[in-house]
Amino acid sequence: MLDLPIHLDGAIRNQGRQVHAALRAAIVDGLLAPGLTLPSSRDLAAQLGVRRNAIVAAYEHLASDGLIEARHGAGTTVAERLPEPTPPAPAAAPRLAHAPVRARPFLLGQTGTDARLLRRLGGLVRRRIAGATADELGYGDPRGSAHLRAQVAAYLAANRGVRCDPECIAIVSGTQAAIRLCADALLPPGSRVWMEDPGYYATQATLRAAGLRLAPVPVDDAGLDVAAGARRAAGAKAVYVTPSHQFPTGVILAMRRRIELLDWARDSGAWIFEDDYDSEFRYAGPPLTALAGLGSGRVIYIGTFTKTLFASLRLAYVVLPPDVVGRVVAARAAHDRFPARFLQDAVADLIADGTLAAHVRRMRARYREARDATAAALRESAGDALRFTVPEQGLHLLALLPEGVSRATALAIRDAAEVEVRLLSDTQLTPRGPEGFILGFSGFESAALAAAARRIGRAAREIAGGAAQRSPTARRRVRHPTVPLE
Amino acid sequence: MLDLPIHLDGAIRNQGRQVHAALRAAIVDGLLAPGLTLPSSRDLAAQLGVRRNAIVAAYEHLASDGLIEARHGAGTTVAERLPEPTPPAPAAAPRLAHAPVRARPFLLGQTGTDARLLRRLGGLVRRRIAGATADELGYGDPRGSAHLRAQVAAYLAANRGVRCDPECIAIVSGTQAAIRLCADALLPPGSRVWMEDPGYYATQATLRAAGLRLAPVPVDDAGLDVAAGARRAAGAKAVYVTPSHQFPTGVILAMRRRIELLDWARDSGAWIFEDDYDSEFRYAGPPLTALAGLGSGRVIYIGTFTKTLFASLRLAYVVLPPDVVGRVVAARAAHDRFPARFLQDAVADLIADGTLAAHVRRMRARYREARDATAAALRESAGDALRFTVPEQGLHLLALLPEGVSRATALAIRDAAEVEVRLLSDTQLTPRGPEGFILGFSGFESAALAAAARRIGRAAREIAGGAAQRSPTARRRVRHPTVPLE
Repeated sequence: MLDLPIHLDGAIRNQGRQVHAALRAAIVDGLLAPGLTLPSSRDLAAQLGVRRNAIVAAYEHLASDGLIEARHGAGTTVAERLPEPTPPAPAAAPRLAHAPVRARPFLLGQTGTDARLLRRLGGLVRRRIAGATADELGYGDPRGSAHLRAQVAAYLAANRGVRCDPECIAIVSGTQAAIRLCADALLPPGSRVWMEDPGYYATQATLRAAGLRLAPVPVDDAGLDVAAGARRAAGAKAVYVTPSHQFPTGVILAMRRRIELLDWARDSGAWIFEDDYDSEFRYAGPPLTALAGLGSGRVIYIGTFTKTLFASLRLAYVVLPPDVVGRVVAARAAHDRFPARFLQDAVADLIADGTLAAHVRRMRARYREARDATAAALRESAGDALRFTVPEQGLHLLALLPEGVSRATALAIRDAAEVEVRLLSDTQLTPRGPEGFILGFSGFESAALAAAARRIGRAAREIAGGAAQRSPTARRRVRHPTVPLE
Repeated sequence: MLDLPIHLDGAIRNQGRQVHAALRAAIVDGLLAPGLTLPSSRDLAAQLGVRRNAIVAAYEHLASDGLIEARHGAGTTVAERLPEPTPPAPAAAPRLAHAPVRARPFLLGQTGTDARLLRRLGGLVRRRIAGATADELGYGDPRGSAHLRAQVAAYLAANRGVRCDPECIAIVSGTQAAIRLCADALLPPGSRVWMEDPGYYATQATLRAAGLRLAPVPVDDAGLDVAAGARRAAGAKAVYVTPSHQFPTGVILAMRRRIELLDWARDSGAWIFEDDYDSEFRYAGPPLTALAGLGSGRVIYIGTFTKTLFASLRLAYVVLPPDVVGRVVAARAAHDRFPARFLQDAVADLIADGTLAAHVRRMRARYREARDATAAALRESAGDALRFTVPEQGLHLLALLPEGVSRATALAIRDAAEVEVRLLSDTQLTPRGPEGFILGFSGFESAALAAAARRIGRAAREIAGGAAQRSPTARRRVRHPTVPLE
């Protein structure tokens, strides 16, 4: 009897398991052919230097797997019918279109690391886990923690003018998850949806992944052009809008447009997805009332803890019109249900004891400083090559290149400056107007932001300053209704 | 000038905010008509007993909301164009089809509360949050934590015979979320999917919600009848299967069926969703090798921490064939991304330091005792009215009623026994064979389970014992291929 071509894995503690794993791999890989007679347990024990009992246990395990057959008197053989051998594992890791990006300026979605907040959150989560009741460990209400929903309802009433029953709130893992959930529950496949143009690229992807068709609606200096939407896609079933701070232009949706939008939604039975993604960070004047605060049972309001806390927390919330709560919750139950229960309760504790509000105040001051450092460094380094207004709200700044500068040139500037920056054209469904950079200024030190801003400012002046001079349109006054930032 | 019909909310700290919130509500609700001239800031301050500055701030805020208009010299008026008044909030909370159920025997999905494990997990999560780096707080790899993916890969190789690159693993919030994610990414809308019949009701709902059509495939004492599936729905694009422990029958998918299934999937280009939901809890003999351990690039393997830890953790994982990782991750990025980062890392720590394995050993002993207590109480109380085999794996026991007992009678027994129990017919796409109860025995004390088992056993004997005797088929030997438990 030849020795079997197997090697034991010393990392597995139990000898029987070691032998089982090694034989299983050899059989599945085709090293031991169907019908092959295996050595007696005594012989194999001697070959491998293990106890005979380990071989007996491994053989029994393989027999219950169906990989070997023990015939009384005829010894043990590899099963006659076996699956095809496993193809070899891929040499390289799979290539991903969505590979993670490095956290360097001006990556969007970073937030301030604050040791005080993290310590407090960690302590609250620990207490919630250690003290969990049996009910809290089981499947629960698919809307999420009642404690957090009550805190969110109180916060929205006091700060955003949104009055809602906590029963109409669902806790979700992010804004895109909320949009997807409601789209699946409320919109027939193939429906058209008004999308702000330019608008948030992640939502474009989400709506497309949900099988919906995007109807681009231009944004001017009063926000979404409702009349243009009604002309171009009157039959749309929904609209995605960022009324408090349009992404990426920063425009506020004017009251007359809000009323037009609510009227259109009511008359056409369409849903309004209101993404209120950064209203906690307003640097001048109080936060504006949310669209959902103006009434109408057509607004699906979405808020998030991604900006007030951090992105990898994966916690957001959606306020549903009362008559669709049942449908959305049913869809929810057949999907991800809710984020980890104790995490929701810990964040509710963080709101209830005032820690979150204090954290937001600290971060607002820090982000204002970061914004000012970024703006000052851009101004002093870029000359005429970048134009921007300093935003009164939010965590990003939009800097426009001279008209005529191409996307390729903008990418060259980005690469020369060694920054992570989104281009304005990434947000456009209809390419037009000047190219620009969307600079996230939260989550980085002011000094690092200023240095990065100087790099991109200088690169813009060197690369695009020249390009703009060569462009026949460069001397024209830059004025375009979709990006009214000057 | 009359007093305005408004009342300040003392819970709001800042006086200006109090006034703003009260006026906003009055305007939005239509109590203050469009065009109405508001009192001077001095008069309103006197009426409300607040500082005049608070009124000035509130008026400025309302003006930026667009709710009032300040005309130089003409005083301040409510804006002429305003949204329709908000409809009154619903008197009753919305009715939910998926209302949470009470945690009482024999609710499925409960797991053991273990103070030791919860303390340890809480401590690990706290440490992960408090020590989080900026990278860990940001958006990250949509597949989830590399640390947890590495731990899962090592666990699967050692325990389930599944060898995979951690790059091919995605961390998800549950088994249904994994199925939905892969269905959305890989299956054309309207595709047919083989579904075990009887089978897991939650997956039936998930597949339907994903816009897929279920093709019921019967389960016999060798598991899914692959030949029957191929006859009835050869063009199916996927199959859902629980090979290690069929839900709810407990049957193990035989090796010959595994090979047939892998062959069919390879030849027809279909995907196999392998739901390996409770293999950690095997009471006799070692855990069987997973279908994904037998090779083939067609198996999408899904494991979960719902059973080894608890349901409200919302943590599971999916092993993807290498050539679809990119597509699935792209779909993921446009949806929920991943569960909270530090939670994933803490669970990885729990695996790495051996705590999870020790916990599973403790729970396995506890569940075995719970299973035995349930079985003994059923045997002594039900007489011939309930037939069952004691399961060698998992967290539930299927007890069959005599043939001829209707679903309505089964529900009457359930209600009389005051237990939370699923019916076998809940899992059937094609009603047939005897009715039965699916009794979850994890997560409850043995004494409570035994008492509940005696209640249901006695109720079955009283209600169905009689019904069975009255039924013309009751004396026939109960034998049905779909539920081969005797």
